[in-house]
Amino acid sequence: MTVMTPIATARRRAETGLAARQLAREGFAGTTAGLAPGHVQGNLAILPRDQAADFLRFCTLNPKPCPVIGLSEPGDPRIPALGADLDIRTDLPRYRVWRDGALVEEPTDITAHWRDDLVAFVIGCSFSFEEALLAAGVPLRHIACGCNVAMWRTSIACAPAGPFAGPMVVSMRPLRAADAIRAIQITSRFPAVHGAPVHLGDPSLIGIDDITRPHYGDAVPVEADELPVFWACGVTPQAAIVASRVPFAITHAPGSMLVTDLLNAQLAAL
Amino acid sequence: MTVMTPIATARRRAETGLAARQLAREGFAGTTAGLAPGHVQGNLAILPRDQAADFLRFCTLNPKPCPVIGLSEPGDPRIPALGADLDIRTDLPRYRVWRDGALVEEPTDITAHWRDDLVAFVIGCSFSFEEALLAAGVPLRHIACGCNVAMWRTSIACAPAGPFAGPMVVSMRPLRAADAIRAIQITSRFPAVHGAPVHLGDPSLIGIDDITRPHYGDAVPVEADELPVFWACGVTPQAAIVASRVPFAITHAPGSMLVTDLLNAQLAAL
Repeated sequence: MTVMTPIATARRRAETGLAARQLAREGFAGTTAGLAPGHVQGNLAILPRDQAADFLRFCTLNPKPCPVIGLSEPGDPRIPALGADLDIRTDLPRYRVWRDGALVEEPTDITAHWRDDLVAFVIGCSFSFEEALLAAGVPLRHIACGCNVAMWRTSIACAPAGPFAGPMVVSMRPLRAADAIRAIQITSRFPAVHGAPVHLGDPSLIGIDDITRPHYGDAVPVEADELPVFWACGVTPQAAIVASRVPFAITHAPGSMLVTDLLNAQLAAL
Repeated sequence: MTVMTPIATARRRAETGLAARQLAREGFAGTTAGLAPGHVQGNLAILPRDQAADFLRFCTLNPKPCPVIGLSEPGDPRIPALGADLDIRTDLPRYRVWRDGALVEEPTDITAHWRDDLVAFVIGCSFSFEEALLAAGVPLRHIACGCNVAMWRTSIACAPAGPFAGPMVVSMRPLRAADAIRAIQITSRFPAVHGAPVHLGDPSLIGIDDITRPHYGDAVPVEADELPVFWACGVTPQAAIVASRVPFAITHAPGSMLVTDLLNAQLAAL
């Protein structure tokens, strides 16, 4: 059954991770932003076992952009730690299938692509720390504007592992100094979802030449009394997979995350 | 007995808070910086009971610049919580005596000034968090330069209480962004010694017109790849006392702090 569910209706219906995953199974193909408030959402990367070991090394060496919050057994589409019933083949609204670094398909279900050597990685996502920031009264302009966060490739090189390498991608949120300090405190509590910022202030120091033109997402203004604050971003591992031109990989489609049964509050390190 | 003990000798001798206080009792009149490593040092303010209630309100309303870590009973020169043998009349190397806002004396002992209505306040000092920063590898330029930290009066108004009011005084340490983020994390653990910074980046946003000319302490350069990071400073309460022109007050002399038996590590909130 494929039913295109309007987002407003989806939000009303998906109060839990399970409900959000059931929506995806029923064919909902929209963004998961705003679904199942309070629940951890994750970036998805699926690789054959031959590349999975190197990719796990890549994540381990680059924990700020690539915090692994879930990992499947080879060939097993379940990740019980993130949801008892979770089936990684059906539970995201939309996927991207990559062959030799080229996007070949954007299905809403990857059952037909599943193989007994595939390993699924779930990687923390900034939605979790943004919820904590908003709860503390830290304003987030891209959310106020209803647009996507602005992201850039930087001059910060990830530690390479096998075929996986490339620049760290960062997201930027403009904040006044007092809010930036508070945001550093709050996000430091959440190492599993990128943790504290990697930079703030002068963008050129991390290789960003034009703060008005993001490489991904939407531009937001940085006002004169604000600092741009940069967090490591989950686009980093996806960009490394694409750049590696590995023969086969599957990722989530942008904005179409895995919604888990974990609560954001459970990720707090302190 | 008044013996001027050279600082290097004092450091060798004063490994504990008690040893540092004994040095002061013997007449050592130098800086306490570097004495009794690992031990909490504090700013001192002594006021008659008539003003002490308002001053305690002032501290409570302005906890970042005025964190009270010790408080005596009226007329009692002891503060056992900070040191079993501690006598606030003799245990600092040098004091300042103020009458109607004017500095009238800088004695090494205030026994002759003691009265049965005096209340002693001990207020946290940045020495404690600087130790934690250095231990974490965060470089502090004023320490590398062997000079005093740079301080400014700001446009941030303290909440007033009775005769006590005035601007927040801040200290500034120039740091690269990654070190600034780490410094925010580390100092957030120490609310009893000023805690997290109150500002970073553009000095003009807190009323500092010239970052090269501090109001107190010594100038240090802010390099192109650094941010100035500003912490609330224990000079704030002393400046408020002087500005209040209360009839009588005693403070520590600059750099001549109370060395306590508390360990800096004991102040960590988490």
